[in-house]
Amino acid sequence: MMDTMNYTMLCDFYELTMGNGYFQTGIDKQICYFDVFFRDVPDGGGFAIAAGLEQVVEYIQNLRFTVEDIAYLRGKGGFCEEFLNYLRHFRFTGDIWAVPEGTPIFPREPILTVRAPAIQAQFIETYLLLTLNHQSLIATKSNRVVRAAEGRPVSEFGSRRAQGPSGALLGARASYIAGCAGTACTLADELYGSPAGGTMAHSWVQMFPDEYTAFKTYCEIYPHNATLLVDTYNVLQSGVPNAIRAFQEVLLPRGITHCAIRLDSGDLTYLSRKARKMLDDAGLTDCKIVASNSLDEYIIRDLLLQGAKIDSFGVGERLITSKSEPVFGGVYKLAAVETADGTILPKIKISENPVKITNPHFKKVYRLFAKESGKAIADLITLHDEELDESQPLEFFDPEATWKRKTVTDFVARPLLEPIFQGGKLVYTLPTMEEIRTYCAAQVDTLWEEVKRFENPHAYYVDLSQKLWDIKQDLLKQNG
Amino acid sequence: MMDTMNYTMLCDFYELTMGNGYFQTGIDKQICYFDVFFRDVPDGGGFAIAAGLEQVVEYIQNLRFTVEDIAYLRGKGGFCEEFLNYLRHFRFTGDIWAVPEGTPIFPREPILTVRAPAIQAQFIETYLLLTLNHQSLIATKSNRVVRAAEGRPVSEFGSRRAQGPSGALLGARASYIAGCAGTACTLADELYGSPAGGTMAHSWVQMFPDEYTAFKTYCEIYPHNATLLVDTYNVLQSGVPNAIRAFQEVLLPRGITHCAIRLDSGDLTYLSRKARKMLDDAGLTDCKIVASNSLDEYIIRDLLLQGAKIDSFGVGERLITSKSEPVFGGVYKLAAVETADGTILPKIKISENPVKITNPHFKKVYRLFAKESGKAIADLITLHDEELDESQPLEFFDPEATWKRKTVTDFVARPLLEPIFQGGKLVYTLPTMEEIRTYCAAQVDTLWEEVKRFENPHAYYVDLSQKLWDIKQDLLKQNG
Repeated sequence: MMDTMNYTMLCDFYELTMGNGYFQTGIDKQICYFDVFFRDVPDGGGFAIAAGLEQVVEYIQNLRFTVEDIAYLRGKGGFCEEFLNYLRHFRFTGDIWAVPEGTPIFPREPILTVRAPAIQAQFIETYLLLTLNHQSLIATKSNRVVRAAEGRPVSEFGSRRAQGPSGALLGARASYIAGCAGTACTLADELYGSPAGGTMAHSWVQMFPDEYTAFKTYCEIYPHNATLLVDTYNVLQSGVPNAIRAFQEVLLPRGITHCAIRLDSGDLTYLSRKARKMLDDAGLTDCKIVASNSLDEYIIRDLLLQGAKIDSFGVGERLITSKSEPVFGGVYKLAAVETADGTILPKIKISENPVKITNPHFKKVYRLFAKESGKAIADLITLHDEELDESQPLEFFDPEATWKRKTVTDFVARPLLEPIFQGGKLVYTLPTMEEIRTYCAAQVDTLWEEVKRFENPHAYYVDLSQKLWDIKQDLLKQNG
Repeated sequence: MMDTMNYTMLCDFYELTMGNGYFQTGIDKQICYFDVFFRDVPDGGGFAIAAGLEQVVEYIQNLRFTVEDIAYLRGKGGFCEEFLNYLRHFRFTGDIWAVPEGTPIFPREPILTVRAPAIQAQFIETYLLLTLNHQSLIATKSNRVVRAAEGRPVSEFGSRRAQGPSGALLGARASYIAGCAGTACTLADELYGSPAGGTMAHSWVQMFPDEYTAFKTYCEIYPHNATLLVDTYNVLQSGVPNAIRAFQEVLLPRGITHCAIRLDSGDLTYLSRKARKMLDDAGLTDCKIVASNSLDEYIIRDLLLQGAKIDSFGVGERLITSKSEPVFGGVYKLAAVETADGTILPKIKISENPVKITNPHFKKVYRLFAKESGKAIADLITLHDEELDESQPLEFFDPEATWKRKTVTDFVARPLLEPIFQGGKLVYTLPTMEEIRTYCAAQVDTLWEEVKRFENPHAYYVDLSQKLWDIKQDLLKQNG
């Protein structure tokens, strides 16, 4: 359903005005290179998680203007008929490289590169940024929340507070990639395979004459999946005792000991510790405690530090909107153009703000891993045709503070970006959600703890090769 | 395209577990009343703007489970076959009342009420909240931004930073309802009629040998729509002089004086004042100045206070995600159940936190307007069958501080919620986007300036009728 949507017209209008302009001036076929990269990790974190590539692939494959789209554009005025005719047969014929979904990514390195005729490369900007920004945002946030829970399962609970239907669905998808154990969203399970779960709202309890009857009825219908919401009236005086009674009367006689209660309000540390004791005293040591209610990575960390007895978490609005920082600032910048004879001319975007100056040229990113520990040491951005010789010591340096130099030996260098489209054809086998999830967890494991700190993390090195740095300096001098 | 999406399965899984439970216990046909309301206005504002009802209508009308959905649910286990069979023919047969889109709304008053068999009323919770929360959030934020611009047009520019495709599309829709003049998103225009516009990115300028050639070429192709982006290199030394030259050489000889420049970085107050002077000195007094770059209501207000010479604004990520507060906390709470003989039994949800206690019963909301000024005085929540006699003075009181009483005379009382569905049939004529937009502006005009303040606004009265207040107190005593 969602997969076959045609989002061709979900573009900023200026992509079309520029497209028509390129078409009329003959620049449309000029081969260009554009990079997607970002400048700041949300929440001041040490790294982000790339996500959304599968939706980029679907978008590129479905890219076509309908007769109605063309009629609409004609009605807007300003476009020449030849251009509208051209759009009718518009397809993407270029190349795309990208980091696989689930990869930890760092500021200023390309996470996706497009090589295509100007008109095509420009046109796909809006949707590529939209999908990569959104899913990388939610994946990054989810990974923080999952890490805070220290191995306890985290479920994504936020559909009702998401920013639109695809905010809910693709957000659930991204959260699963980044380590959530499941979602409350049924359609996200059906479409993307993030296991959906959920048992009862307060209204279930209110629909019965009393809380005990509501719990008992639920246990009878779902003896193997009884998670009872215990805070409709009073958690410790009513909810937990009624849950214990229902478990003892319905589940235990059937030999079922796996069950759970959910706390959705109040002081979760205090209530979970008290509830744990009441459950244990009643012999219900297998009964789990689930907590929800405006959680995020900081609250979860504090709850666990305070000794809360919580076995799993449901996280809603603060995850599905990345509430503390709801924007991932990926940008799409021209890096080079190709002359008719295939020469690549690097392009740079100058800014008064040095961190806004782009890295020019058609590039490659290597991640260096220490041979012994397997830990990631640094990322190195090179020209597209530079090869790293792993047998030689490698010196790299901070691109802003070039006197800071470091030499690495005994490393393995892995190119981060993989070919996705070549000549408009998909050349990449999309991994399954489970594969992405496993890969993501393994890659996050290659990062040092210092990089994973929630606040003031160690700045991971993302450096430029000497050749690339020299080219950048030359361009700065020419344009400065 | 978007309109025909079937979002039936976009529900929290617990809606289905509860549904199956209601079905198996025979509670499924119990008529229930649920209210949608919210507790806090985002950004500490004085009111919110309701939006998203049209998508609720589409959702209800498209509500049906496909064969694939049923097969997926069967595979999850836990659902009885009779229930799955029932779902196969599931339709909404109940009643819905709601405030029209574009209405200013206040905390704790119902903005939508559902009366339906328990299984149906429960099931639609997730999607109703999702769509009303999302669009009301963006409409509320957009209205703040539009008011800050004091009559200058504001365009929504945020697609690339939106939370998913529908975040972009429905966000653009909501922003148009709330007063934005247009959007950068082409598809939002095609689908919802919010006028799309846009001219060039920095990449256009970079694609030509120099800035002047880029500008001149653009003016030749779009002489009647030339908005030149002047900050690719240096605004005052290069961008504005090159724009002036292009306007003078291409537009003026054709008698065209309407044109514009866009500033997208730097100090917008300083640059706009300098640029204005340069344009005026060159005789280009009709040339407008457009500003963008991480704007919101506060920055726009400050720019105008500082005398920035800006004629219109493009607002991106901070509007399309409501960045400063990206969640609208609408909830869906059981208010009453109906016995077999049609008696309505009010229900209340208790909480240790008094503001979280719900208003019970099937209700109505009146907005009182002063006859003379036309200004809104207060909202009064009453029982569903209470009529207000406008010829008699009306005493109302603060539901938390009941000694605070106020008597109103010479008022007109207008019921806020309108019937949308009756017996599953749409009985509401959906207004056009232009009608909603006009209605919204007129309704915001009925609010006193004190309520419209961005910070620490006057708290608008939302009071309970004496009858409703008495019922609530009785229920609190019974359940306390």
